[in-house]
Amino acid sequence: MEPKIIRNKEEMRNWSRSMRAQGKTIGLVPTMGYLHQGHLSLITEAQKHTHLIVVSIYLNPGQFAVNEDLSTYPSDFHGDIQKLKSIPNGVDVVFNPQNLYDYGVEREKLKEREKEGEIVSCLEDEEHETWIRVKQLEKGMCGKSRPVVFRGVATVVAKLFNIIEPDVAVFGKKDYQQWRLIQRMVRDLDFAVKVIGSELKREEDGLAMSSRNVHLSPQEREQALSISRSLFEAKSAAKTGKNICSELRQSVIESIEAAGGKIDYVEIVDQESLETVEEIKNGVVVCVAAWFGKVRLIDNMEIS
Amino acid sequence: MEPKIIRNKEEMRNWSRSMRAQGKTIGLVPTMGYLHQGHLSLITEAQKHTHLIVVSIYLNPGQFAVNEDLSTYPSDFHGDIQKLKSIPNGVDVVFNPQNLYDYGVEREKLKEREKEGEIVSCLEDEEHETWIRVKQLEKGMCGKSRPVVFRGVATVVAKLFNIIEPDVAVFGKKDYQQWRLIQRMVRDLDFAVKVIGSELKREEDGLAMSSRNVHLSPQEREQALSISRSLFEAKSAAKTGKNICSELRQSVIESIEAAGGKIDYVEIVDQESLETVEEIKNGVVVCVAAWFGKVRLIDNMEIS
Repeated sequence: MEPKIIRNKEEMRNWSRSMRAQGKTIGLVPTMGYLHQGHLSLITEAQKHTHLIVVSIYLNPGQFAVNEDLSTYPSDFHGDIQKLKSIPNGVDVVFNPQNLYDYGVEREKLKEREKEGEIVSCLEDEEHETWIRVKQLEKGMCGKSRPVVFRGVATVVAKLFNIIEPDVAVFGKKDYQQWRLIQRMVRDLDFAVKVIGSELKREEDGLAMSSRNVHLSPQEREQALSISRSLFEAKSAAKTGKNICSELRQSVIESIEAAGGKIDYVEIVDQESLETVEEIKNGVVVCVAAWFGKVRLIDNMEIS
Repeated sequence: MEPKIIRNKEEMRNWSRSMRAQGKTIGLVPTMGYLHQGHLSLITEAQKHTHLIVVSIYLNPGQFAVNEDLSTYPSDFHGDIQKLKSIPNGVDVVFNPQNLYDYGVEREKLKEREKEGEIVSCLEDEEHETWIRVKQLEKGMCGKSRPVVFRGVATVVAKLFNIIEPDVAVFGKKDYQQWRLIQRMVRDLDFAVKVIGSELKREEDGLAMSSRNVHLSPQEREQALSISRSLFEAKSAAKTGKNICSELRQSVIESIEAAGGKIDYVEIVDQESLETVEEIKNGVVVCVAAWFGKVRLIDNMEIS
């Protein structure tokens, strides 16, 4: 099935409203493109909940700091469309805007305005000045090493919700903190969107699927398997009664470092509040971010 | 006409959606109650744009700091309904929720969680943690003396937009900075709502209408007329060629202080960016906040 490609905000909203007027429900799968099997599984999940599916493909500058990998983030729009066509029952719309932050303001006027520069994202030259902050959930883990990422994610997701007006939106649990943060934002701002978390997908060797995996050298890719291996080991250890988080955490750190990875963080946190847990009693999730060469990978494992 | 009173979020959204499905458009006038002629003029304005009118009456704790006047803010729900009934063509719905920040979380669980307390609003005990920040426009003027007010306003307005899903929302230009900030938020987050600014309304003697005026003693009320008088004088002076803002500003300050007022701020700013202007060339607005006794009043005057 050939998806309809929409690039304009108004056209997108008009499509959604005309579908809703016909009694159709709409599922949204937001992506930054360079689709892999993980994304396709989000779409399959969304298909269970709504009549129609919109996939957004938009590399959001608002969630990258200037020193991050916006410029090298992989993209392949043509390939993405081919993959979407191959999905059983297909996708109805691909929303692929040029720039979600272009408000038609003259550039000259912008340049005159002083830059405050408190928190610098790749949007710093734009006139955009509204940000959604989820105070607790944005702080730890990825929010610590990437201070602009979650305000950028929350804000662009709110924009997509307001443009597409979906009934359901599906997020991957690979980005666990992002998923919880979006759930919280939706609750706190009363968005009329049901947020669904979809299970993390792994390559056959265990590596969590990610658009960034393409940048790993064969050697780095081999080393990076230490992440998933150590997470599965932690889960097994917990099952056999090892419930002291500091010990489990230390094992994960040592395994990844032994393989040549550079740890950004390893945290064992409550599945909902994402607050650090000392002893496993209720459901926790072990979250990891680590560098292999120039590639920062994240992964996680729920332990219930 | 007797308005329908709705207190529940879901019921409110269902009403709006059923009306939209019938091809009706919806106008929202958000208020904190204790309605006066200024509010009624917002409703009259809204009636020009949409088939149906929703007035929200909700005293929003999120925009008051703990040392501010939430507890003494006047209210009279019964009187408000009487006033709304008397409006020609009337109001269709009054949305009057009990607590927009109650997410059904157990209080005990909340108490366990640490308070960070960076910015304290009257919501600090609640589990709410998502805030919308409009970085430049929230800073100056009222934002300087009331640091939580605009994140509170932006956030509750986003909630109301998501619950009521109006086509049009009308805000009073009395709260000039609030009006501009909401316009910016709507643009930056792509809300499908047209924001309309409605002219400030004055009592016969010139005092800007405000729910807080009821707290003025007869003497304070008399003194407070210095605000509007000095603003009209500034406008006349500008018309006769006095275009140096520091001088105009000084005259306003002196007039209000001479009458016994305590200045919070007097600023002459660009009508859109709200940035300070030194010489009047394009449209500006003179904005004032001043205390008379325990009452803080705001007023403004556009000069084009």
